[in-house]
Amino acid sequence: MSNSGKVSVGIVGASGYGGVQLVRLLLDHPEVEVVYLGGDSSAGKDYGDLYPHLYNKVKTKIEPINLDAIASRCQIVFLGLPNGLACGFAPQLIAKGCKVLDLSADYRFKNLDTYTAWYKTEREDKDIASTAVYGLPELYREQIKNSSLIGCPGCYPTASLLALAPLLKQGLVLPETIIIDAKSGTSGGGRQGKINLLLAEADGSLGAYGVAKHRHTPEIEQICSDLARRDVKIQFTPHLIPMPRGILATVYGTLTDPGLVTDDIITVYKAFYRNSIFVEVLDKGIYPQTKWACSTNVGYIGIEVDPRTGRVIVMSAIDNLIKGQAGQAVQCLNIMMGWEENLGLPTLGFYP
Amino acid sequence: MSNSGKVSVGIVGASGYGGVQLVRLLLDHPEVEVVYLGGDSSAGKDYGDLYPHLYNKVKTKIEPINLDAIASRCQIVFLGLPNGLACGFAPQLIAKGCKVLDLSADYRFKNLDTYTAWYKTEREDKDIASTAVYGLPELYREQIKNSSLIGCPGCYPTASLLALAPLLKQGLVLPETIIIDAKSGTSGGGRQGKINLLLAEADGSLGAYGVAKHRHTPEIEQICSDLARRDVKIQFTPHLIPMPRGILATVYGTLTDPGLVTDDIITVYKAFYRNSIFVEVLDKGIYPQTKWACSTNVGYIGIEVDPRTGRVIVMSAIDNLIKGQAGQAVQCLNIMMGWEENLGLPTLGFYP
Amino acid sequence: MSNSGKVSVGIVGASGYGGVQLVRLLLDHPEVEVVYLGGDSSAGKDYGDLYPHLYNKVKTKIEPINLDAIASRCQIVFLGLPNGLACGFAPQLIAKGCKVLDLSADYRFKNLDTYTAWYKTEREDKDIASTAVYGLPELYREQIKNSSLIGCPGCYPTASLLALAPLLKQGLVLPETIIIDAKSGTSGGGRQGKINLLLAEADGSLGAYGVAKHRHTPEIEQICSDLARRDVKIQFTPHLIPMPRGILATVYGTLTDPGLVTDDIITVYKAFYRNSIFVEVLDKGIYPQTKWACSTNVGYIGIEVDPRTGRVIVMSAIDNLIKGQAGQAVQCLNIMMGWEENLGLPTLGFYP
Amino acid sequence: MSNSGKVSVGIVGASGYGGVQLVRLLLDHPEVEVVYLGGDSSAGKDYGDLYPHLYNKVKTKIEPINLDAIASRCQIVFLGLPNGLACGFAPQLIAKGCKVLDLSADYRFKNLDTYTAWYKTEREDKDIASTAVYGLPELYREQIKNSSLIGCPGCYPTASLLALAPLLKQGLVLPETIIIDAKSGTSGGGRQGKINLLLAEADGSLGAYGVAKHRHTPEIEQICSDLARRDVKIQFTPHLIPMPRGILATVYGTLTDPGLVTDDIITVYKAFYRNSIFVEVLDKGIYPQTKWACSTNVGYIGIEVDPRTGRVIVMSAIDNLIKGQAGQAVQCLNIMMGWEENLGLPTLGFYP
Repeated sequence: MSNSGKVSVGIVGASGYGGVQLVRLLLDHPEVEVVYLGGDSSAGKDYGDLYPHLYNKVKTKIEPINLDAIASRCQIVFLGLPNGLACGFAPQLIAKGCKVLDLSADYRFKNLDTYTAWYKTEREDKDIASTAVYGLPELYREQIKNSSLIGCPGCYPTASLLALAPLLKQGLVLPETIIIDAKSGTSGGGRQGKINLLLAEADGSLGAYGVAKHRHTPEIEQICSDLARRDVKIQFTPHLIPMPRGILATVYGTLTDPGLVTDDIITVYKAFYRNSIFVEVLDKGIYPQTKWACSTNVGYIGIEVDPRTGRVIVMSAIDNLIKGQAGQAVQCLNIMMGWEENLGLPTLGFYP
Repeated sequence: MSNSGKVSVGIVGASGYGGVQLVRLLLDHPEVEVVYLGGDSSAGKDYGDLYPHLYNKVKTKIEPINLDAIASRCQIVFLGLPNGLACGFAPQLIAKGCKVLDLSADYRFKNLDTYTAWYKTEREDKDIASTAVYGLPELYREQIKNSSLIGCPGCYPTASLLALAPLLKQGLVLPETIIIDAKSGTSGGGRQGKINLLLAEADGSLGAYGVAKHRHTPEIEQICSDLARRDVKIQFTPHLIPMPRGILATVYGTLTDPGLVTDDIITVYKAFYRNSIFVEVLDKGIYPQTKWACSTNVGYIGIEVDPRTGRVIVMSAIDNLIKGQAGQAVQCLNIMMGWEENLGLPTLGFYP
Repeated sequence: MSNSGKVSVGIVGASGYGGVQLVRLLLDHPEVEVVYLGGDSSAGKDYGDLYPHLYNKVKTKIEPINLDAIASRCQIVFLGLPNGLACGFAPQLIAKGCKVLDLSADYRFKNLDTYTAWYKTEREDKDIASTAVYGLPELYREQIKNSSLIGCPGCYPTASLLALAPLLKQGLVLPETIIIDAKSGTSGGGRQGKINLLLAEADGSLGAYGVAKHRHTPEIEQICSDLARRDVKIQFTPHLIPMPRGILATVYGTLTDPGLVTDDIITVYKAFYRNSIFVEVLDKGIYPQTKWACSTNVGYIGIEVDPRTGRVIVMSAIDNLIKGQAGQAVQCLNIMMGWEENLGLPTLGFYP
Repeated sequence: MSNSGKVSVGIVGASGYGGVQLVRLLLDHPEVEVVYLGGDSSAGKDYGDLYPHLYNKVKTKIEPINLDAIASRCQIVFLGLPNGLACGFAPQLIAKGCKVLDLSADYRFKNLDTYTAWYKTEREDKDIASTAVYGLPELYREQIKNSSLIGCPGCYPTASLLALAPLLKQGLVLPETIIIDAKSGTSGGGRQGKINLLLAEADGSLGAYGVAKHRHTPEIEQICSDLARRDVKIQFTPHLIPMPRGILATVYGTLTDPGLVTDDIITVYKAFYRNSIFVEVLDKGIYPQTKWACSTNVGYIGIEVDPRTGRVIVMSAIDNLIKGQAGQAVQCLNIMMGWEENLGLPTLGFYP
């Protein structure tokens, strides 16, 4: 526990966009105190050197990654590192008594062979990995409560699964017909100097990438299979959109019962998400704009049945860095700690 | 013929984005001269009042719409009016000897009942309408050559059909599985002061609209049915993207032969478009960016087969105002007049 | 007082961007309850019809403007109407016991002749107008405390005056050398369908407007004259920037003492704003980005002295709709009511 | 001469934004053929690997930089390298008989001490440097005609000097009062992966940089001094704007004769630029938008006198990569070769 009597939190990999969202969110969180910010390439710097607008709010220096030091000071550790590193750190942190929330892909997979096939990393932490819970509270709230290791979902999977879960859980669509056409702002590419993420290149333009091979595909499939109680393969295509943040997933599926109408499906969704304060199922004829979700932990869902084709189209909008990453991790933390689920989490942005 | 010895052209509805593209393109066209610019609400204004950067290039005043005057001065008339007006003007202009290229939906439909059902306008020009040709040169080049009335395609149908035509023509996909997830810059909404098209609202945001009911649906279906030689229903979802111009259509279809691989499909496309100078079929692994197409009459097509799902994904990028509207109309004009198909049409934009 | 025991607030002109910022801010304000939303053109509509993302948060209908009804229900009234209307409403509301915060230009001027000269509206409320206080708390905090009528500053004047006040108050620059080159996001133009504010027109572009005649000029001059204790004329040039929100004012002035260096001026500013929690004076070499200020009530100020030219350059970044409009009004309300000045006001946005 | 009978051209440093503009412009140039593309880090790659939309248009591979090879194959060499490299290459290329157009800062300065002071590079090529001509055709057309070495202007200096030249040449403003507040799209930062140029950081934001110390300052001052026939110091502040391309320079100066009105100054400008086909002086009340200039070699100039303050405000808009860089270099080439000045250069973009 920190000197303030609050729960002490460390963030490893604090310099990226996920890290700065966590730092920002936790500044407003009434029950925690960030006592450690860690990173390798930025160790020794003031946090304000990386994010000057935070100079006066975050006085912490970035420290090298030392697991003993972290465990001795932090009850909770968020890992915001590139894929393949958390699986080397989490086992030790957990052994030392920390609760760990990992923002990378390392603890998202029940079947580590799938992880290894898509991420090209062999795993030696199978016991620990088997205790990890997929941190999508709308689906796995009960398991999260009792877990010490959360594999926080990817941004695309979060948007996609919020759109798909009621359909698959209730058997309303033919799983093999599912197509997810997803669109993301460029912050999803991380805080790294890539040419294709430059404003000069990305602004005023639009394109798909990772077609038929994006690594969020098996992650989505795993949870869809769990929901459908059988193996599901889905089509997933991400696109880069000229905006900093936000994801829209437009999801298509053929209805098992072609007699269902839009109102029926909306009713199902409203029931499914009745206790999920961060999901807003929109009324008929209203489709979500990603900007509504920006700077919030809310997912907005719009639904339309096309009676001409027998398909349902579900649109799901989130902030990729909050509900799609750091905010959802805080939501999981709240659940793990038995706090109100929405503690410290924004539910309404500023528009326009 | 104009005093300059060039073919004389009139543009009715010159004040909108389609109009200004035509004006701009035809300024560079070696064989035509724009002798008439018409409009109702803007009649009497200098064109430079509407578009100040053109003040010194276009000295023409906008005139009221008078069909006799137009026909007496113009060999060619472009109609760039709201849907439902061209069908009142075109018959008279054709009777007076003009060739007409209509940018609205009025002459896109073989079956006028479909038009009436989706556009809520009864038609009394069935004879003339039956002579109209759908102005997509890559599919109907021969018919365009001999026509006096062109129904120029919509922007979404252009992008979608360039992506779909080889698949349907060759029977490579199951037509009922086709889904078109399309994304457009906001100029597609026209030069009108709508709240949702304001930069303050649209920038930094993204959303679908017209889900399961956009009026480009039956237009796409008509041509798909023609290509597939049977009735085809497709799924079409448009989205508004925070950028001024450009369309990307991401098209999904289940392969009839699941053994086909990406290279096979690329080969088919390259053959199909061998004589189409405005279609660039990209090599394997390259997906189009809409910015490549901006300010050009070119469509860029990228292709990927997903062996996991048995689907082909085709991405088609165009400039919605040029290949998707005014440039394609000029391309049709070139064909009608027996000129080189690319006369006055740009094939390469400036990047970035 | 509202049923909740909170102070009851009405917003007249709730449908615009200023209105929706007020609605949004006051939802989080612990001491007030919004009990009335008024408007003329939108009367009768649900607020969610105008802003669908607020459907579930704001159940209030927009009501016609009836001053008796407003005064009977509201202790506090925000007026967010076009210039020239508040001066017809405020006198009656005040007579009926309301405190009024006006977001238009009507109550910003000590000298109503200046108002009439620039706004072309004769005034018949001179007694009431003479009681109005200019609502820039960093300069007029004491007067605001005891006022019942606040003329809330314009967005450009707020950014400009935060940059200029210490210089003029301390006599550090020659007033006649002051040039304000200001840049604003397009939401400053309001929620109205103007062609030049369309994303298709404004995105990817930049231009000045209102050069040498923008109506914020006399407002800035009035406060500058007050600070300098003599008549001051300034140069003010606004520009429209392709982004939804944010203002940067780049202010130039010739130093009276050319021996001053950057550190000297920063010291003066830090002292001047020591008790102003919403002004962040940046350290040497750090210049503000408007995005830092977005969705907050904070003004960020960067300073550089150019020893080559003897000028000081001050850059001031705010969110035009919050510190430049609605947030500042709430800040004034907090002061009027004797509450903590930052109640309900955000101090840190989400970045990027 | 190339096999095609055209003048053979080489581009050293072809991979950046300046390089790709040159490549693109010269594809349309009727008198030249690009026979060599050179670069160090990208040597060996196909040009289409860097810019996929050019795959089918530019088949040239990027070659290592070998001056003998270049000189044996190229009559004309464009150097598009980082500052400090051209001064090592140009002397040899000229000795071998090439004409050289350098896009870096190396040959822009008459006084090499100024260059060394601001660019921190000692120079050993003073003889050759003394033969260089500053490549702003609107001011130095006659000298360019007979030169073999052109120091092409920076983007900011081009916009600024087009705005300032008539004022200084005619003695209409007090030189020491000149302030240039300049705004640029982010492509001005080059094709390099800098964090502050990422869309996620730069979009929706705005800030100044290099305040009181940007290296374009002495370049502007040199030419201003030449025009004013005495030493001039100016104030120059650049800002980064959330758009890919375009520069607006807003220039302020105090009139020597306060009786002059806007029309007077416009008359002076129209006369000054009468023979300059790439400068458009706008009529009274019209201010330039950068988008008008995009993809063209044109500079648009708007003018307003403020009788209240005795200042003139001149706004100058260019495309930073064309008139501000590659297009201007081609314009110089045309002049050097005795061709029409506008050969291969676009004068009208597509709007919006």
